[in-house]
Amino acid sequence: MVSVHLENGVVEVRERPVPKRPRGFALIRLLCGGICNTDLELQRGYYNFRGTPGHEFVGEVVESDDRALDGRRVVGEINLACGNCEWCARGLGRHCPHRSVLGILGHPGAFSEFFTLPERNLHVLPDDLPNDRAVFTEPLAAACEILDQVAIPRGGEVAVLGGGKLGRLVSQVLEAHGARPRIFGRQTPDPPAASYEWVVEATGSPAGLARAVEMTRPRGTIIIKSTVRDPVAIDMARVAVNEITLVGSRCGRFEPALDLLRRGAVRVDGMISARFPLAEAPRAFAAAAGKGVFKVLLS
Amino acid sequence: MVSVHLENGVVEVRERPVPKRPRGFALIRLLCGGICNTDLELQRGYYNFRGTPGHEFVGEVVESDDRALDGRRVVGEINLACGNCEWCARGLGRHCPHRSVLGILGHPGAFSEFFTLPERNLHVLPDDLPNDRAVFTEPLAAACEILDQVAIPRGGEVAVLGGGKLGRLVSQVLEAHGARPRIFGRQTPDPPAASYEWVVEATGSPAGLARAVEMTRPRGTIIIKSTVRDPVAIDMARVAVNEITLVGSRCGRFEPALDLLRRGAVRVDGMISARFPLAEAPRAFAAAAGKGVFKVLLS
Repeated sequence: MVSVHLENGVVEVRERPVPKRPRGFALIRLLCGGICNTDLELQRGYYNFRGTPGHEFVGEVVESDDRALDGRRVVGEINLACGNCEWCARGLGRHCPHRSVLGILGHPGAFSEFFTLPERNLHVLPDDLPNDRAVFTEPLAAACEILDQVAIPRGGEVAVLGGGKLGRLVSQVLEAHGARPRIFGRQTPDPPAASYEWVVEATGSPAGLARAVEMTRPRGTIIIKSTVRDPVAIDMARVAVNEITLVGSRCGRFEPALDLLRRGAVRVDGMISARFPLAEAPRAFAAAAGKGVFKVLLS
Repeated sequence: MVSVHLENGVVEVRERPVPKRPRGFALIRLLCGGICNTDLELQRGYYNFRGTPGHEFVGEVVESDDRALDGRRVVGEINLACGNCEWCARGLGRHCPHRSVLGILGHPGAFSEFFTLPERNLHVLPDDLPNDRAVFTEPLAAACEILDQVAIPRGGEVAVLGGGKLGRLVSQVLEAHGARPRIFGRQTPDPPAASYEWVVEATGSPAGLARAVEMTRPRGTIIIKSTVRDPVAIDMARVAVNEITLVGSRCGRFEPALDLLRRGAVRVDGMISARFPLAEAPRAFAAAAGKGVFKVLLS
């Protein structure tokens, strides 16, 4: 089968055997994959990654223990949790300390003709949700996570720092919720200091957090969506004196994301910049790293 | 009258006229003052401070509009709020953007034979609370602020980073609340990574926050009490991935602090390292900056 391999910053296409399916796992055929900023970070050396990347996908179940899944179109949660620890018992397998993560840590990713994932990670897609939209489920779930963590009221004005893929998804999620987001991209002048009660940092850049601290009101909340590799410097005295809260935010539940996509409350069609066949993954990665490029799909 | 003057890092004692009392303000005679780390930071150049420092005090009201205050022993909240803005209306004058701050910003401090403060800032002391204890009200209120901001359950294990004055007050407040604090001083080896659900950062050092992030469990909370002047570097990817919450925490309400002191639930007698007359403030500041020194009092 065709499989993408990433090592020392180089993306290659390799011919590999179809993976064996462990018990409780489904064997999945890739229908559509999405290249995420995290994939580009892996290419830059994050996690010393070496292997098959890819964690945003729509696939078709080829083989599984649960026969009801066979032939179904699915998306899948990316954290492979142990199922036995305190975190898993709390329904927070996303934080299981023993987890591996699809295409990121210890489990081969979805940019492969075939790959495996635990059956309990899968969500069967409704027929009316096409692949090109469903492939946004995972990043959209990460955007939805904000509302699971922070009580933003309807009508609340939210500054979204970062006009990229994640910033736009976050903005749409907030709008669907009834809040009033405003995106501040790289070119947008910052608002006055201490002017927003809620600020979402989704720039993906080390400079974003300092800007976020500056524009947050006393007792306000910053939601940190960027996973910046290098240490980030911030004005902690300002955080303490203004009693600002910072909330780290990562993966989210798939249910609200699927609901938003199905209802058309979040629109992703305009966010697709390019499509490539899996065999042209090197070109796809290069395209995804381009300026002003949004989502690049593989299929 | 005798008054302390701080300028360019030099502490001097000066003879100055007794201040005029504006309407709504009390004229207060200093009975006991406490030197805080913030005073030492001001000496190091924080806020480009120049003037009379001092914000921890017990005083006697000499003259006031409210005659019921005359002759009473008082402590006082340090933020002089405008009383008219949204923050003041919400009872959060501590964050009033127009505020001045006793001995820190725009209002002469308490290290002076006489000084003024708005009458609404004052709390009359019960007779059974001696000056040497009551002078801890302000820093203890800052420690109590944590419980106003974060729901720490009884029995909850809390790591307190910093074995200085603030760390010890925080630890006692948590104990009085029924939580189980453990102080990690400069010499204490850090606990294993991701081992505490609640971590209070009270080291006063730029390195404290990185340690705090390291020892906090996924979805855990760090309370930031240190107001470190220089930018602080932290691993924001770890904050995002582990969905850690950081809460800046500053001044608190005086009521719970006074209650704890009166009940003897917090003991401060062992925390007094030295006492100096006001006229020996330069020696007092030098002593307060010494290693292993806790509270230095002026009277």
